[in-house]
Amino acid sequence: MIAFTRGVPDPAAFPLEELSLCVQEAMTHDHDAILPYAGSRGFPLLREWVAETNGGSLDQVLISHGALQILDFIVTAYAPNGATVLVEQPSYDRAVTVFRRAGCKVVGVPMEADGINLEALEELGRRTNPVLFYVIPDFQNPSGATLTLSKRQALAAWAVEHGCLLVEDIPYRRLRYQGEDLPTLRSLAPEQTIQLSSFSKLLSPGLRVGTAFGPLLQINRLAKVAEDTYITPSLLSQALVYRFLAHGWLDHQVQRLQELYGPRLEAMLAVLQEEMSDLADWVHPQGGFFVGLTLRNEIRADDLLAKGKEVGLILSDGRGFYADGAGDRFVRLPFCALSPDEIRSGIQSLAEIVRGLAQGGTP
Amino acid sequence: MIAFTRGVPDPAAFPLEELSLCVQEAMTHDHDAILPYAGSRGFPLLREWVAETNGGSLDQVLISHGALQILDFIVTAYAPNGATVLVEQPSYDRAVTVFRRAGCKVVGVPMEADGINLEALEELGRRTNPVLFYVIPDFQNPSGATLTLSKRQALAAWAVEHGCLLVEDIPYRRLRYQGEDLPTLRSLAPEQTIQLSSFSKLLSPGLRVGTAFGPLLQINRLAKVAEDTYITPSLLSQALVYRFLAHGWLDHQVQRLQELYGPRLEAMLAVLQEEMSDLADWVHPQGGFFVGLTLRNEIRADDLLAKGKEVGLILSDGRGFYADGAGDRFVRLPFCALSPDEIRSGIQSLAEIVRGLAQGGTP
Repeated sequence: MIAFTRGVPDPAAFPLEELSLCVQEAMTHDHDAILPYAGSRGFPLLREWVAETNGGSLDQVLISHGALQILDFIVTAYAPNGATVLVEQPSYDRAVTVFRRAGCKVVGVPMEADGINLEALEELGRRTNPVLFYVIPDFQNPSGATLTLSKRQALAAWAVEHGCLLVEDIPYRRLRYQGEDLPTLRSLAPEQTIQLSSFSKLLSPGLRVGTAFGPLLQINRLAKVAEDTYITPSLLSQALVYRFLAHGWLDHQVQRLQELYGPRLEAMLAVLQEEMSDLADWVHPQGGFFVGLTLRNEIRADDLLAKGKEVGLILSDGRGFYADGAGDRFVRLPFCALSPDEIRSGIQSLAEIVRGLAQGGTP
Repeated sequence: MIAFTRGVPDPAAFPLEELSLCVQEAMTHDHDAILPYAGSRGFPLLREWVAETNGGSLDQVLISHGALQILDFIVTAYAPNGATVLVEQPSYDRAVTVFRRAGCKVVGVPMEADGINLEALEELGRRTNPVLFYVIPDFQNPSGATLTLSKRQALAAWAVEHGCLLVEDIPYRRLRYQGEDLPTLRSLAPEQTIQLSSFSKLLSPGLRVGTAFGPLLQINRLAKVAEDTYITPSLLSQALVYRFLAHGWLDHQVQRLQELYGPRLEAMLAVLQEEMSDLADWVHPQGGFFVGLTLRNEIRADDLLAKGKEVGLILSDGRGFYADGAGDRFVRLPFCALSPDEIRSGIQSLAEIVRGLAQGGTP
């Protein structure tokens, strides 16, 4: 069985020995801070690290149990029931679910190989008056595309002009396997952007340590929502992460991940080229967890999922990534937790299924 | 400065050495379960412990970052915007905030020394058609009252008759300093009750480990809300708590707490009797964290809080505990984190302030 479903790290990449040491250190040095009730913004030393890394102040940082939970706080604070929010289309399916659950109207801005279509953004912005735009600029989930510098600049200017909050989610940013970093949206529109990030892809997702960095006013508001939700977040794993960072071990860990995941991306792209170049289009990602395929033939997602299941190939439902419910022809391919052999065999199966369905002429 | 504000445990009561050992054990034995993404219901071994303790099955248990977060999930699942929920009056102020934030109409059922007034429950139930009733039956926060057996039976019967969900919150239940346990609401109306509990008061609040035990159908629904909120909860501290329980150390820890907190309650009651018997009425709690005073004279909460602050006595706003915004004359007195001397000095200050305000004749 091969699972092209969720974007999970390879457990072989967890720095287990270092984490074991760090958790002991956290309990030894930080117990006064992590055992009682505390503020809602999270473990102060880790907030300080995030603030310094971003050139901001302590109170501009809030840490929670993963960035998705912070997105839920943002929705509570800024997107009341019935508000319109923009997402890229396709976008991260769990983000779309968070918005939908709160009663938001979710509108998708079409993606191209170099990020969102700016004309569509202008038009949708005018027509729907969105309160926020949720954007994953680096190695986007699920398409793999990276927003170009000129589009980042245009998006930042648009957000300022329309008074629209940007929620910039950058969990994959450090996992770049080629090319150079581009400026964050946060750096281009600092008063307008809440930047979400996470240690899930770098250290371990089960620790649940996600961060928000943004303007003081907005973070203050999120801190109130967080307090009203759980008083204090779970602090032990935040202290653990801080101890890991304080040792200076992050760069080496990132390098390990790049060396593990980069070749898997190359393997994925090579076998796609061999097996599916006549069947689908895709962006060549420079990092991250995903390659997103758009199949050329009309296909029903239900048929694709069912056929996959028959041969032990587990796929995500492409429609979950599309705010407008389209996405039948979209397939997200996570490659980080699979070996090159598994990737090859999975793509070969996928190609065979797609070819069969295309010939069957499912309308 | 003496703080009669939040219900916090005494940090001296944290079993630090045992927790340090347990966190190492958790990382050594449970890393396969706690480092990757996992299900949304929480660490399986701890869920198993809760299930066995309650005579239920694994999937009837959900664990989150404190019970308040689970209450928020219950609201998302069962109390849509505009729904009516019942709470005891007075009730836990943070619970009232969770309901209000979601747009619920919060209706208070008046408390008496032996728990809710049943006639008022009948009348309010008929008139407002509530979807759920949030109840703290043991050593209630903030009044200290315990619901009697006959009232528990009547409440359970009422809930079944009206198809109203009971949310039974029992964080203090094991902290009984005198008298005998009464049956839980969950045991009296098992198909109708979600029971919340927590290790915050027994081990440490910063670990954020709260539990829900209830009917499978309801817990399944909460598990979906939890997954949509944070995918997986923070698992490290859940594994730590499990290791503590697996050592069989909980009973001894509870006994330590009873020995520490019981005399503080006695000190509080003795000095109240000396200083305030002509100024206020209160219930004699048999356990928990709080004594709740109702002042006899008309007093404005704002005056009381301001006068307290002047002499270094920090009080909670009584109105926060009252769904209908009354509560000017209500004062919650947490005693667990204060020494008998601090308690004496705090109550003496409070008595002086109340006497002054009463003589001033604030209307």
